[in-house]
Order: sequence, then structure tokens, then C-alpha cells
Amino acid sequence: MNGAESLVRTMVNGGVDVCFTNPGTSEMHFVAALDKVDGMNCFLCLFEGVASGAADGYARMTGTPASTLLHLGPGLGNAVANLHNAKKANSPMVNIVGEHATYHVEYDAPLTADIEGIARPVSHWVKTSPSAKTVAADGAAAITAAMMPPGQISTLILPANTTWDESDGPAETEAAPGRAKVDEHAIENAASVLRSGEPTLLMLTGQSLYQHGLDLAGRVAATTGAKLMAQGSNQRLQRGAGIVPLNRVPYPVDQALDVLSPYQNIILIGAKPPIAFFAYPNKPSELQREGCKIHRLAELEEDQIDALERLADAVGAKAGSAEPQAAFKPDMPSGALDPETIAAVLGNLLPEGAIISDESVTTGRGFYPLTAGAPPHDWMNNMGGSIGLGMPLATGAAVACPDRKVICLEGDGSGMYTLQSLWTQARYNLDVTTLVFANRAYRILQGELTNVGAENPGRKALDMLDLSRPDLDWVKMANGMGVEASKVTDCEGLQRALAAGLASTGPYLIEVVL
Amino acid sequence: MNGAESLVRTMVNGGVDVCFTNPGTSEMHFVAALDKVDGMNCFLCLFEGVASGAADGYARMTGTPASTLLHLGPGLGNAVANLHNAKKANSPMVNIVGEHATYHVEYDAPLTADIEGIARPVSHWVKTSPSAKTVAADGAAAITAAMMPPGQISTLILPANTTWDESDGPAETEAAPGRAKVDEHAIENAASVLRSGEPTLLMLTGQSLYQHGLDLAGRVAATTGAKLMAQGSNQRLQRGAGIVPLNRVPYPVDQALDVLSPYQNIILIGAKPPIAFFAYPNKPSELQREGCKIHRLAELEEDQIDALERLADAVGAKAGSAEPQAAFKPDMPSGALDPETIAAVLGNLLPEGAIISDESVTTGRGFYPLTAGAPPHDWMNNMGGSIGLGMPLATGAAVACPDRKVICLEGDGSGMYTLQSLWTQARYNLDVTTLVFANRAYRILQGELTNVGAENPGRKALDMLDLSRPDLDWVKMANGMGVEASKVTDCEGLQRALAAGLASTGPYLIEVVL
Repeated sequence: MNGAESLVRTMVNGGVDVCFTNPGTSEMHFVAALDKVDGMNCFLCLFEGVASGAADGYARMTGTPASTLLHLGPGLGNAVANLHNAKKANSPMVNIVGEHATYHVEYDAPLTADIEGIARPVSHWVKTSPSAKTVAADGAAAITAAMMPPGQISTLILPANTTWDESDGPAETEAAPGRAKVDEHAIENAASVLRSGEPTLLMLTGQSLYQHGLDLAGRVAATTGAKLMAQGSNQRLQRGAGIVPLNRVPYPVDQALDVLSPYQNIILIGAKPPIAFFAYPNKPSELQREGCKIHRLAELEEDQIDALERLADAVGAKAGSAEPQAAFKPDMPSGALDPETIAAVLGNLLPEGAIISDESVTTGRGFYPLTAGAPPHDWMNNMGGSIGLGMPLATGAAVACPDRKVICLEGDGSGMYTLQSLWTQARYNLDVTTLVFANRAYRILQGELTNVGAENPGRKALDMLDLSRPDLDWVKMANGMGVEASKVTDCEGLQRALAAGLASTGPYLIEVVL
Repeated sequence: MNGAESLVRTMVNGGVDVCFTNPGTSEMHFVAALDKVDGMNCFLCLFEGVASGAADGYARMTGTPASTLLHLGPGLGNAVANLHNAKKANSPMVNIVGEHATYHVEYDAPLTADIEGIARPVSHWVKTSPSAKTVAADGAAAITAAMMPPGQISTLILPANTTWDESDGPAETEAAPGRAKVDEHAIENAASVLRSGEPTLLMLTGQSLYQHGLDLAGRVAATTGAKLMAQGSNQRLQRGAGIVPLNRVPYPVDQALDVLSPYQNIILIGAKPPIAFFAYPNKPSELQREGCKIHRLAELEEDQIDALERLADAVGAKAGSAEPQAAFKPDMPSGALDPETIAAVLGNLLPEGAIISDESVTTGRGFYPLTAGAPPHDWMNNMGGSIGLGMPLATGAAVACPDRKVICLEGDGSGMYTLQSLWTQARYNLDVTTLVFANRAYRILQGELTNVGAENPGRKALDMLDLSRPDLDWVKMANGMGVEASKVTDCEGLQRALAAGLASTGPYLIEVVL
């Protein structure tokens, strides 16, 4: 068998059996191998940023890597922004990037580029495989690297002749080491802080935001009087009725300073110390109050669940003592759409097991309170801050969980970055309902102009933040990619459209005009 | 004035007065400076790949750099593919990339990335400005670097505090050195090859493909019996009635080997030796016949016009001896659309001064013969091979040349990469008529599967090369971005739609169903 087939067999055997792809000439043997090897499921994306974002969504919902198949340096380049987001989310991923045949690189043909150079800023592991004999073993190493806790981006570069030359067959993938347990000192330190009676916050992300981790953290909080908060954005957070609830650190610096101001101690569980998303003149980068002590219970790559269990024992927090969220539905709103009424419609209609891909930016900042009592669901955020992740992430989550409803909450500015996602959703009939919040502006930037001290903006500046003239028509664009869609301008319309979207088993888009 | 204003003033004074932009928080002071400084013309793009491709198109038509304004590492990442294309085209460009404030980088906020690392593979010149006092001088240096012959990509990274802190005012931009003259030995060598009577090809790109260069090369050819050919793809080629005509090296390796097989000598004028776009098993990378000698008259960065003038003198080629293209119009075709009938419609309707942005891939390979006798026009190709350049390039060319008709010849697969270009064309009422050739496939790859020796592809492989299920509806997508559009299925329809598009003064899209 040739190198390509040895790699595809290695990947399937190693548990990487989904590939989001946009191939070119240098990847044709990989593509041809798909019909020789059972079990690799390929999803064509019409832009590589869709592929990398979808692989991120798949990884978040399964805990295992999907692969991408990308065409040389520029194909990888198109994937960079969502690889950046996936790297910040520590989502495991295996990128396969085609390259010219080893002997052809010296000719500097049009597509020749420094692929490793493009890969390194957005990868934890990068390798160019030197021959068809090494491709399988390098593929196995890429999978192992991707599965290193808490999850890594692996990029394997394949010169074309390594795919068509004869190989030695597939390789075995070694399991990655498990998560390390935190040492006893970290447990004792956190317990002693919690026993001190000083106002203390447990700040969580990663594993600790799944239901069991939240229950453990909730027990500790209920027993010690500590409070819980999640990072500003998180890879995946489980919430809803029956699950211990918590809020996130707000994005606006002043609000974040305010909510963190009571705490003399912050205990980090997977999380990083709270910092501002951007620097602003005369505002701090660090968000904890002056004198607040930062403690680390568990790093993101460590076993947070074990650490929380040991901490719960240390402070005498018993099973059943946590306070889960009660089920509730907000009153169904009518009339004008605004962030609060949209949240109320969502809170009414979110189905059990829903997966939320949230890139709603300004519109969605206040969605948490009114959706808190909905049936249990998962909530995913953009952790790298590069807009254009929401629709790809939803696409990958729908591939990962075909039995669940995926709801994508998308800004209009952000959505335009990777709208090609809709075609992939249509081709594979993925069950994604997308709400595009059409405020026809980069609304967040209108606030940021003031925040950075650029006062009294003129017409030319404001024009750069405005998405009107012409207004985007999301219904037409979605229809153009084969996705059914409707436009709503009030709560009644949103309620009807969201119900219709959730009732269908394929993709549906709702333009929510604000 | 703050650093941002000092930079914008430096850029306008230095001749860089067009900016294709998608800004974010870290670029807000640059945006605010637009209203304080006269003369900077900004064009909002809804995806950064549109911005970098548009800057390329602007540079190709003016010979001077446009700027882009990009949001940190991921915003630059989205621009990478078309920066790669622009770098391969040696189009001058000045990228301004925002970065976190210098003191904020250490906190590894979500958008923190190795911006220089992302920039280097697609830039000739990269610098992070350390303070508001240096921003203006660094901006001036970026412009000078961009203007170094034959044209370079400059990337200047601006930490946010360098834009809001107080500056020392604008800086003067030094002129870049002019093109070096080739030494006499190169002229003598080329002349002696031409005098030998051996079959000789002049292979051209760059400056030598503008009308005057073609006339000089045409004189040499007419006097010596040498033939002319352009590189496979070129930054900008002038052609049409009254201009010395030439063909390009074909993309398919076997065809290229065939057309180059007569020549015992190839004299390069700006061009690189002819090489295959990709390597294929059992096909050569080098396309000249065995034993063919490669000679260099002028490098791309050298003064090709001076070299051709001296060569013409050396071989006694007189003014007026070149054989320009005669004007002709092909018969207007009717009935079914295919590459030849489309070319005939184009050959009939191309207006004088048209600018062609050609990313028509397989459909357009045969467009040259039937458009050769049209009124004088410019033809631009993708030189980096990364698809998704055609529509951005057309956008930038239309900004550069508002009095000329821009015609974008676009594949459907390629067009999907950067379809957001259409919105920018609509907002600024740019005079671009786009023909999308809807063959509903990555047609080129269907051939490449066979070319690389992947025989008898199965269903899964073919599915990855197929753009149907669902078919893309380009009329709806264009309308959704505010661009008028129509769908044509025969020559009569194409003739009507192209005439309508050329008669309008704004953007127009034609879906050409094949």
C-alpha cells in the first residue's frame, strides 16, 4: 500500500475517523485512499476555516481529535484563525497538510511556502514526514500528541511523494499519558484558604465545567461559603436545570473588576488568572482586586476532577450538598426583539441536550440568566477571540452528536467570516439551527472606540464599524447555499422560526433583525 | 498627536493613501485617526482575505502599495492566503497589524499570538514597532521596503499603546532605489544566443509584459526569429489589438513539455525557468527539453525595459519591426456554453481598457486565442496558486482604476473562498462584472486525480471534488450581499447579461451555468 493508505489506516485504527477537508492536487492520494479504507468519514468544506473550526467543535463534544486535510501552506493559512481559536481552547486536532514532492520544493513553484512556519504559531506539534516509510508512524505520533492533556493541535505535513510511494503499512498509535494528579500541597493550600473564612472565589474552566466537576465545586462552595465563577470563555460548559450553575467573568473590564472585587482569594481550577481581553488606557490588565491572592488547585492539563474530589473531602463537603439550578422558564415575551427578549425565547425553547455554539458577541452577553433554568445543555464559547468560529464549531458539533440539537448563536459580522459553513451543513443535512443577530454593525467596536479613549469618532471611523449600505440578507445567502431560512423582526416571529428550526432535522437559519 | 495619527500622516505623505481594512479593538486609534488626517481612503472588507487580495489588485494596477489594516495574529492569518499570492506576484503592499499593548502581551489574552511568526512566511519585511515615538519612522521604512523592486510585502505590527501614546509626529519616507541595470555581459550573451540561429524562446514576465516591453521583445523576435512566451501566470499582462501578442506556458505538464520542446535556448526576462506547478509521478519538474540552455537577460527586480532596449540595439532590431496583434472579433456564438463559446462572447464584448481578473481555472484555460484581437486590455492571473484571489483582486483593481471596466472571471469553487468581496463591491459601487463559471465541481482536481496516478477513484474520493448537492445559487448569494445578478445557461443569455453588466456602473454578477 502507498503512504497515503498507510496513514489513513493508521488514523482510523488510532480513533481519528472524521476528516474535515478541502483537498488539492497534493492531497489526491489521501483522497483516493478514502475508498480503500473503511471507516474514515469525510466532510467537504468550501473554505479551510470551516474545516478547522468544525474539527474544534467535534473535539469539544467527543474529547477526541478530528482531522483536517488542507492544501499546502495557503490552505493551512486559511485555517489559521480557527486553529488559533482551537489552540486556545486546547481542542485536540490532527491537521494533515499536503506539500510538494520533496524533490519539487527547490523549484519554488507557485504554491511553495514555508508550511512549518505557518503551522508553528497555531500548533503544539509540527512535523514534515520525510518519506512514505515514515508517514504512518508520524501520523500515529501526531494523534498521540493531539491527545496529550488537555488537548493539542498536531500538524503533519506530507510531501506528495510520501503519499504515492510504497509504505511499510500502518502504525500503532500509542495512548497519550493520562492527566497527572495534583500534589497534596495544592489540596491542602486550597482547603486552608477555604477554611480561613476570607471571601474566596473558585474560578473554573476545562473538565471542571462538566456536570460532575460542577457538582464537586458546588459541594465545596456550599460547605465553605466560597463562590463559583467560570472563565470569561470556555471550551464547553454544562448547564441548565439540575446542574450547579455559575456565571462567567464578564467581558467589559469595569464589570469584571466589579464582580471580582469582593474576593480576597481566587482558587484556579483549570483556569488562568482573570485578565482583560484587551488592554485599555488607564485600566488594569489584571482583574482581581488589589491584594487578592491567586492560588492554583489544578492546571488545565491536570486531573481537575480528582483534585476537586480530594478538596471536597478535605473541607468535609458531602455528596448532595451542592445546590443545583432549579428548572424554570421565563415568561414568553412578545413584541420587540432585544437581547433580553431573545434570551427569554431561548430560555423557553431550548431542548434537552441542546448544544450551543455561542458567537453572539454583544447581543448574547446577557443570555445566561434567562436560559439558566432550561433543560440540561452544553454551551461552547470562542476562546481565541478570532471571530468566524461560531458556524464552523456548530457544524463540527453536529457531526459529533447527530442525535442532539445544535443551536448556533451568531453575530452578523462574525458570521460573514465563515458563512461557507452553511453549505457543508446542507450537504450532510446537519441538524443546526443558526440565529444570526443582524444588528448590522460591528457593535462591539462602537463601544471599544470609547473604551480605548478614541473620543468623538467621525464619519470615516464609524463607517468602518458599520455593516449597512447594503444590508446583508442572510435569508438569501443561506438559500444560496441550500439552507432553509427566515427573517424575524419580533418575538412572535422568533418563537415560530426557532420552533420550526428545532422541529426540522436539517440546517435552518433565522435572521434576527435587531 | 498620538502614534496612530503620526502613522496615518506618514502613510498619506508617503503615497500610501488606500487602506483595505477589517479593524478590531487594537486598531481603534488608527481608525479614529482617519477623521483627523485628510487623504486616507478606507475600504471595509468583511473578511481579511478580501483585504489582502484587494491590496494586491490595487498594486498591480498602480505600481504602488495599498495598505491593509488587520486585527492581531488571527486577522493577519485570514489574510495569509492572498498575502502568499501577492508575495509570489511581488505586489508592493503595506500591512498594518494591531497587537496587544506591549505590557499586556505577557498575560496571554485570548487573541495573543506569535504575529511575527504568522507574518514571516508571507512577508519580505516584518517589524514590531516598540513605541509611539518609532511608529512613524517604522511606517516610512515599511513603505520604502514595499517599493523595493520588484515590489515587496511589508508587515508592520503595532502594539496598541504605540497608537495611543504621544508621538513625535510623522516621518519622511525615503524613496526606494530604482531598478538596477543588467550588466553588459547579460546583453552580449543573449545577443550571441539569438545570433546563433538555434531555436530560441524569450520567456517574459513582470515589466516586460507591458506594452512597451512587449514591443521591444517583439522587435527582437521579428529580427532574430526567436519566439515569445509569457510565464504560466503573470502579475499583469497587456494584450489586445495593436499590442505584440504572446501565449503563456500551459498548466498541464504534457502540453507545456510539448510547446517548449522546439527550443534549444530559453532567455529569461524577469521570468523563472519553466517548472511544473505540481510534481507528478514519472513526470519532470523542469519543463524545458533536455539539453535546452537557460540564459538570464534580466531578473524580475532588474530593469527589464532597459535590458530589452539594449538587446534590441545589439541584434539590430529596429523600431516598428514588431508584429502587433490585428484587431478581430470572433463570430458571436449561439446555443450551448462551453469554454470556447464563452471565450467568443468575451472576445466580442471586451471593452477597451478592460481589466481582467482571471481565476477561471479549467474553464478559462482556452480564453486567450478568441480574446486576442479585442481592444487593448490588462490580464491578471493568480501567481501563488491559492484559490480565492479573483474577486478580491478585481475589487482592488476597481478601486485603483475607477474609470475602467473590471471583469472578474471566477471559478465557482474558487469564488466561494472570498465571496465576501461582493459586499465591498456593493458598498463602494465598484464597477466589477463577475462571471462565475458554475461547473459545480473542483473540475481541475478531477483531472489531477488521474495525473498523480490515483486511478479508478471511488465514490468517497469523487465526492470531495464535487460541489453539487446542494448546487450553489450565486444569484441569491450575490443578491444577499447587495449585488445585482443573473443566471445564464446559453450564449444568448451570456451575451445579454455581459452587456448589461458592462453597461452598469456598479457591481454585477453572472452565474454561467456549465
